[in-house]
Amino acid sequence: MTLPPDPVMLPLEVELFATIVAAMSGALVALRRGYDTVGLFALAFITATGGGVLRDGLFLQNGPPAVTRDPRFVIAVAVACVAAVIVGLRVERHSRLIAVLDAVGLSAYAVVGVNKAMMSEMSPLAAILVGVISACGGGVMRDVIVREEPLLFKPGQFYALAALTGAVFYAGLVRVFQLAGTQAAFIAMTVAFILRVLAIRYN
Amino acid sequence: MTLPPDPVMLPLEVELFATIVAAMSGALVALRRGYDTVGLFALAFITATGGGVLRDGLFLQNGPPAVTRDPRFVIAVAVACVAAVIVGLRVERHSRLIAVLDAVGLSAYAVVGVNKAMMSEMSPLAAILVGVISACGGGVMRDVIVREEPLLFKPGQFYALAALTGAVFYAGLVRVFQLAGTQAAFIAMTVAFILRVLAIRYN
Amino acid sequence: MTLPPDPVMLPLEVELFATIVAAMSGALVALRRGYDTVGLFALAFITATGGGVLRDGLFLQNGPPAVTRDPRFVIAVAVACVAAVIVGLRVERHSRLIAVLDAVGLSAYAVVGVNKAMMSEMSPLAAILVGVISACGGGVMRDVIVREEPLLFKPGQFYALAALTGAVFYAGLVRVFQLAGTQAAFIAMTVAFILRVLAIRYN
Repeated sequence: MTLPPDPVMLPLEVELFATIVAAMSGALVALRRGYDTVGLFALAFITATGGGVLRDGLFLQNGPPAVTRDPRFVIAVAVACVAAVIVGLRVERHSRLIAVLDAVGLSAYAVVGVNKAMMSEMSPLAAILVGVISACGGGVMRDVIVREEPLLFKPGQFYALAALTGAVFYAGLVRVFQLAGTQAAFIAMTVAFILRVLAIRYN
Repeated sequence: MTLPPDPVMLPLEVELFATIVAAMSGALVALRRGYDTVGLFALAFITATGGGVLRDGLFLQNGPPAVTRDPRFVIAVAVACVAAVIVGLRVERHSRLIAVLDAVGLSAYAVVGVNKAMMSEMSPLAAILVGVISACGGGVMRDVIVREEPLLFKPGQFYALAALTGAVFYAGLVRVFQLAGTQAAFIAMTVAFILRVLAIRYN
Repeated sequence: MTLPPDPVMLPLEVELFATIVAAMSGALVALRRGYDTVGLFALAFITATGGGVLRDGLFLQNGPPAVTRDPRFVIAVAVACVAAVIVGLRVERHSRLIAVLDAVGLSAYAVVGVNKAMMSEMSPLAAILVGVISACGGGVMRDVIVREEPLLFKPGQFYALAALTGAVFYAGLVRVFQLAGTQAAFIAMTVAFILRVLAIRYN
């Protein structure tokens, strides 16, 4: 692969957006299981920041994880919890909503993960790997904690595959086609999201 | 928040104390489940050091975790295992004893976590976050491994809330009221412990 | 303990070998549970690299984990998946084969873990600890994800004990008896493997 101009850091808003939707998916799972306020916040927090903590803490290792550096992550989780409680009272089919929110978070986290890993001077292959792990990590932690079989391992869910596609698209668009980061991010997230939603719909 | 004199590092004995009681809670869970000697030590070890490893390895990232730097941690776990076996043969109501030991460990780990994070120049909010995670981490790992629903997520347990209260008290007493570290630690641990024990008692 | 000549880094092939056999054990578990291709690769990947990521990311902390630095780890997992699918179609008694592959991976990872930790200037005790954790880590993650009781905690399995024996042998042979790294590795892996296989056989 070519090594063209340095990748640009995506705006923090993309990661905050991923955090909010992932937190909402976690909070809705917690609601469905009858957790109290603290349990709800804890599960939302783990779902939303777990992948990012794995990414920063285990793989990139250039200092404390993002969640400890900017108070907006904790605020984002809190806002998502309130939103989930409000939405949860009105929506009948939690499972579908949880899956869609999870898909948005998955797509956004995959792209952010690749971006951060490439910024950290990892090879494209390693960056894609880190992107996929950070995208799937929070959801797997959520499922392990509530003792459900992780979506990642259920047949035909295209879960990791959607994250992988998003990650590969982002890396390819930035590195090979030299697209601007935000454009590449938008395209890659859309592709990953559509793939995952199609899997939810036809499964 | 004000940024008064540098926080002082709490004596290592506080963390060793937390390690021993947390290890005992893990060892008693292992006894109840009929683990052999190695499984008992392993579960005690994970329960007692898991939160600290998350704290040091994932969040603080200033070198290998405490448990690899001082042999007393491993010795503390071994001592706790022996104590658990002796106590376990005499005590009828393991669940209550496990919960109380867990509460002591939770309180002490919350305070140590905040202290170490503040020493690592984290913001008070991030330090509180790290304190809560390091306090709850070992217990959650223990529960996930033995496939029980983590206490953290059971309604009305005040589990994370007790850790959070202890963490906020410690940070507040040291940073705002400028109390000496060991005094602040003692008060914060007591408050957290009482809160958690009340939840156990009236639940 | 004496502190004789610097330990030499074992050839990367030892870790790649551990990766392949551990990945096969994970892939066979995935086959047995009817995972699709992506789930199979994911479980094989986590089983094979999970312990190494814990070792490098949580404990050694001198940069991104090995799996992100050399593409051969991902290739090794892919090869192992293909091999597992081919073998899996022919072999009746998956459980036995999984356990034996797991034993080989356990032994090799224990030795590699101690070696890397000693290279990282950890004390022998800490190095042995890291070796055992990196040996058992991937298998425990695999079992937690598929919601089985981890082998590590089943009575009479000699699981952690085999890893511990291999780790102690390697550290002792290199440090005390000043054997060459590859010789020490071969002896230590054999001892650990035999111990674990005897436990499988007579249990």
